[in-house]
Amino acid sequence: MRYNNFLYEYPLLDSGLRRAFIYMKGELKGDRVAMGKDAIEELYNSLYYGRIKDDRLELALVEAAYLLDRDKIAVEHDGKKLSFRDLFIAASQLQEYFELKYIVYRDLRERGYYVQPGVTDFRVYPRGGKPGVSASQYFVHVVTERKPLPLRQIMSSLRAALNVRREMVLAIVDEESDITYYGVKLQRMKGSMPPMEVEVKPGAATLMADRVIVWDECLSRQLHEQGFYGNMLDEKRLQISLVEAAYLMSKHGMEILDSKTNERLTRESFIAEACKIDPAFEGKLKVYEDLREKGLVAKTGFKFGSHFRAYERIESVKKIPHSLYLVDFIDRGHEFILPDLSRSVRLANSVRKEMVFAYEEKGIQYFSVGRIKL
Amino acid sequence: MRYNNFLYEYPLLDSGLRRAFIYMKGELKGDRVAMGKDAIEELYNSLYYGRIKDDRLELALVEAAYLLDRDKIAVEHDGKKLSFRDLFIAASQLQEYFELKYIVYRDLRERGYYVQPGVTDFRVYPRGGKPGVSASQYFVHVVTERKPLPLRQIMSSLRAALNVRREMVLAIVDEESDITYYGVKLQRMKGSMPPMEVEVKPGAATLMADRVIVWDECLSRQLHEQGFYGNMLDEKRLQISLVEAAYLMSKHGMEILDSKTNERLTRESFIAEACKIDPAFEGKLKVYEDLREKGLVAKTGFKFGSHFRAYERIESVKKIPHSLYLVDFIDRGHEFILPDLSRSVRLANSVRKEMVFAYEEKGIQYFSVGRIKL
Repeated sequence: MRYNNFLYEYPLLDSGLRRAFIYMKGELKGDRVAMGKDAIEELYNSLYYGRIKDDRLELALVEAAYLLDRDKIAVEHDGKKLSFRDLFIAASQLQEYFELKYIVYRDLRERGYYVQPGVTDFRVYPRGGKPGVSASQYFVHVVTERKPLPLRQIMSSLRAALNVRREMVLAIVDEESDITYYGVKLQRMKGSMPPMEVEVKPGAATLMADRVIVWDECLSRQLHEQGFYGNMLDEKRLQISLVEAAYLMSKHGMEILDSKTNERLTRESFIAEACKIDPAFEGKLKVYEDLREKGLVAKTGFKFGSHFRAYERIESVKKIPHSLYLVDFIDRGHEFILPDLSRSVRLANSVRKEMVFAYEEKGIQYFSVGRIKL
Repeated sequence: MRYNNFLYEYPLLDSGLRRAFIYMKGELKGDRVAMGKDAIEELYNSLYYGRIKDDRLELALVEAAYLLDRDKIAVEHDGKKLSFRDLFIAASQLQEYFELKYIVYRDLRERGYYVQPGVTDFRVYPRGGKPGVSASQYFVHVVTERKPLPLRQIMSSLRAALNVRREMVLAIVDEESDITYYGVKLQRMKGSMPPMEVEVKPGAATLMADRVIVWDECLSRQLHEQGFYGNMLDEKRLQISLVEAAYLMSKHGMEILDSKTNERLTRESFIAEACKIDPAFEGKLKVYEDLREKGLVAKTGFKFGSHFRAYERIESVKKIPHSLYLVDFIDRGHEFILPDLSRSVRLANSVRKEMVFAYEEKGIQYFSVGRIKL
């Protein structure tokens, strides 16, 4: 009674309120819910649910479940009315990771975004934007924390998004249905270290177990202070890492002796030795060389659990600036274990760095993964 | 001349200064450097270098290299005087990871600690303490970031340290010879969550792909608000994780249906299903059960890249306190990859939590690894 009076007095509010009480009916058909014509006006034109097909409105399963939960529609199947539980269970059998998609869809809608479910992703419109009026901003891919995510798949999604100028987002749903949104971006690496002249003397350095020691005091100081190679072992001698040593061999012709034989190592034998010590050596070296050639200084990222931390420029070893990037080399066949990815990105964020992954494909390619607030 | 005058005027400074100019000679014998009797007074009695053997002083290789670098001793071998470089290379062939041990030894000495090299570790005396007067405080184990570190080895070192009331420290030397010191400690886990009564109805929950949904609104609210299980899927339904579901099955007799057949799952079939989804499930479940039985609340640690975060007590879901621990289950045969360990500990520290590892041995055992400042 109260409502009727209310509607009488405020006839314009009619449709909005009535929606809560007068269901629109739909029918579960395959992995869609087919609605009637009336739904176009009610659900599509103003709220952007579903897609129009043959003059009728068709809802994706996540849309139907969301609207059913909010008592906006009723869904039938074979003449039987489905409860939310019925539809949810049916949908989870029709669509892989339906539960996850539902959790993400609901989260985005509740935050006020317009979302269009596609085959592999959600198209999400920017705040204030809507379908038909503005372009979508994000392609959101829903992934479970349990399934390894191949680099290949990330790259093809990223290319698809970039081709139409969208941002790629990974929505990772954890065990307790908390969602973390990660933005994936191509990363351009560019530093501004000036080139350096090095005069190397024969027998300047020795490979000792898993590191190289530069014995000459002058050379040690120059490499450390101008090129920011290695760390001083003491006041006179420099200790450099295997990648640094290999780079100095090819770039500046540095000679490295074998500590066992005291003989000069060729670049090939040095690399073979280094690969025995560190199975990821070759990939790491390629990334290291590429970063140095791009004018950055790469140093070990051990304390952050990654291969390198990288600086755009170091003016003086006495005043080392903040490094902007953590860089991990990955193989082209790499599959991300998502809890590990989560940890890397979280750690990088906690020290105000970008988490960057590097892989080899026509040179070295870089992309960053960072948490984003939607 | 100048120095002679100086010494004449200040005869008490004599021995300290002269040490820089009058070498004590030692002889490299096996993996020791044998010094003369005079070294006992000069090096052992006041500075605690070396060990007395048959009335003479014997130096470990790291000690000899350190003293040689500081021009305090000369070292000969087969009648030939060794340079620092000669001794360093010789030592690295006599002792595995000599370079690393040298780097750590030097660091500790330069920080003013008295250090006694042992077979597998350094005994380090507390600030202000010294050998013969006070007991050592730390057993420092030097490890390279490149070599996997078996749990077994950590445990036997920890037991050896605890048996004589010492603290176990890992000194991890990275590629560029930066050292990170980690303290390893047994961890006692104890929470204060009150026990909870749950009345479960048949068919209350369904296993959907990799998570469980509780449909009943009352039960959902109780589990979430009193027991802090799961996360609300929406206002009425609760989503719980696989370990939570398995625990509720055995602790409170909760029934879980299979979404495909709508039939009740036995605990065994549920666990078999869960193991297919998550290969680490059984171990994680044991840790989860143990934490719950100890009065803690464990929730997923996905965002931190670990298995669980654990709370000592949660009073209200509206006001979730800070969780004190990140807990990872590891197998007894686990080998730590040190960059990963470094990342876990660093991340835990950055969010002010203890990084705790749990393994099964007569129940569940816990130990924590944390960065320490020496």
